[in-house]
Amino acid sequence: MKNPIVQCVPNISEGKDIKKIEYITEPLKHQVGFKLISVEPDKDYHRSVITLIGNPEDMIEPLIKFFMRAQETIDMRKHQGEHSRMGAVDVCPFIPILDITIEECVSYAKLLAEKVAQELNVSVFLYAKAAQNEDRINLPDIRKGEFEAMNDKMKDPKWMPDFGPTEMHPSFGVVAIGARIPLVAYNIDLSTTDEKIARSIARAIRQSSGGFQYIQAGPVFLEERGHAQVTMNILDFKKNPIYRIFETVQMEAKRYQVDVTGSEVVGLIPKEALCDSVKYYRLANKESFNKDMEISELIVQSKKYLKLRDFDELKIIEANL
Amino acid sequence: MKNPIVQCVPNISEGKDIKKIEYITEPLKHQVGFKLISVEPDKDYHRSVITLIGNPEDMIEPLIKFFMRAQETIDMRKHQGEHSRMGAVDVCPFIPILDITIEECVSYAKLLAEKVAQELNVSVFLYAKAAQNEDRINLPDIRKGEFEAMNDKMKDPKWMPDFGPTEMHPSFGVVAIGARIPLVAYNIDLSTTDEKIARSIARAIRQSSGGFQYIQAGPVFLEERGHAQVTMNILDFKKNPIYRIFETVQMEAKRYQVDVTGSEVVGLIPKEALCDSVKYYRLANKESFNKDMEISELIVQSKKYLKLRDFDELKIIEANL
Repeated sequence: MKNPIVQCVPNISEGKDIKKIEYITEPLKHQVGFKLISVEPDKDYHRSVITLIGNPEDMIEPLIKFFMRAQETIDMRKHQGEHSRMGAVDVCPFIPILDITIEECVSYAKLLAEKVAQELNVSVFLYAKAAQNEDRINLPDIRKGEFEAMNDKMKDPKWMPDFGPTEMHPSFGVVAIGARIPLVAYNIDLSTTDEKIARSIARAIRQSSGGFQYIQAGPVFLEERGHAQVTMNILDFKKNPIYRIFETVQMEAKRYQVDVTGSEVVGLIPKEALCDSVKYYRLANKESFNKDMEISELIVQSKKYLKLRDFDELKIIEANL
Repeated sequence: MKNPIVQCVPNISEGKDIKKIEYITEPLKHQVGFKLISVEPDKDYHRSVITLIGNPEDMIEPLIKFFMRAQETIDMRKHQGEHSRMGAVDVCPFIPILDITIEECVSYAKLLAEKVAQELNVSVFLYAKAAQNEDRINLPDIRKGEFEAMNDKMKDPKWMPDFGPTEMHPSFGVVAIGARIPLVAYNIDLSTTDEKIARSIARAIRQSSGGFQYIQAGPVFLEERGHAQVTMNILDFKKNPIYRIFETVQMEAKRYQVDVTGSEVVGLIPKEALCDSVKYYRLANKESFNKDMEISELIVQSKKYLKLRDFDELKIIEANL
């Protein structure tokens, strides 16, 4: 019998108050058919990334409860953070992992979108592979203007939501729900407090300004940690492997006498993405590479070469299946 | 009074027989209004790159004579070389340098195209900024299939030439004439004879397979010199500066235990492109950078950092004005 497995990664606009985050995510815990893998709050972003893995069918009702608790708890009119955002639940993608096509993921995205619109009276945009037209494929295009601009933006027929009212919910804002192939959310730490340097480096690597094809990147200053960071999505890690981005950022940083001091994966990463990068460094150092190495060894090597911090086995998709 | 200056860079499919090359280019020498800057034959490519600088108006008649001599001398049915090609004169772009717009360059391209078609009975495609439709912007799309496929290709209405007969001239082949902004034709030498390694590296950096936005790149094995090379066009050196490509090629080469042993500019390069790269290395090495340095100093620095070979002042556009 078919047992489809997806990864579902809702992001909420609350990254500081652990009690609120606990309350909002509680309906996703101890459920049949899927696992709550991680909740990653970020104080500087004022945002948490939540990762579920399992059968999408079983996720829908608990997700609705989770959306309702976010609506109840978060007031976007008071929200400020380093990450751009437009809603209490800001985005919610379904990602095929095993025994499921991207088209089936699109169907689940639409099902969830319809229910969220109905039961919360919230406007929903379908994005990425679920997008109904080209303008809505890229999340940054939908989110442009952020929460503050959304009510006006939806008055333009071009930006009518796919589900729900054209009037914005005053405290929730709007949400993008969709389906996409796995991406790697990856950040590189810089030994500087100067966000402008992070911005110049982000421009050098990102597709929109001449850099690599499958990279979205931007600068951020992490107040808590006290340094700047290049934050990015690697949309196709096979075509733009992590090591290549890591090395290019390091190379660009040199002109500012800045070092790369660390890097982090947000959410999950496919094992293959780490293997590809470890392989590069092993070969470049004239060392042997064994693609069937133990996962614990892969983690040691990844931490060594990519200076990964806050990383453990549970961040690797395959370790959670 | 306005004195428009363009660069015009016809490429011919003869890179071995110096006497033939002399004969073909003779009508371009000692002319009023423009200068023949260089003739760069390449035996492995079996191709020569010819560079003119000056008033485009004055170039047209001498160029027609040059085209006629190429037609008289080169038989494409016998041509073999490392570089893809489709005609005796393979491509001829006009590039705005001073006091002229790209649109005016397009007009000169069309004028030349019409005359070549008429006087040589040769099929001409307009490309780059002169292209009449989207399929013809990229030269590699027009040239796909090369000389051998062109007669069949032109039977498809989609590939009807812009000027001249739909039947291919049997010995000349076809030519692309157009206008474009300055690009940098740049090659990086590898310490290997393995063309496959050059291909993998080319894939890592070129736009079509996930690399940098404004890079076209491919592999080549240089028989005469006895090593492989990554050959490329940098279409926008401001967005993809040379140093970034040079460093990325070096980084990728490491996994094969291959070194970058040198690099070369084919044709001319804007001074600014060299300055940008020298600046990067000076800053990365914590050295001062003076953008008004003497051109002789700029050359010394460029050779040092980019391992440039066969390079002198006359390869810098500004030194020829």
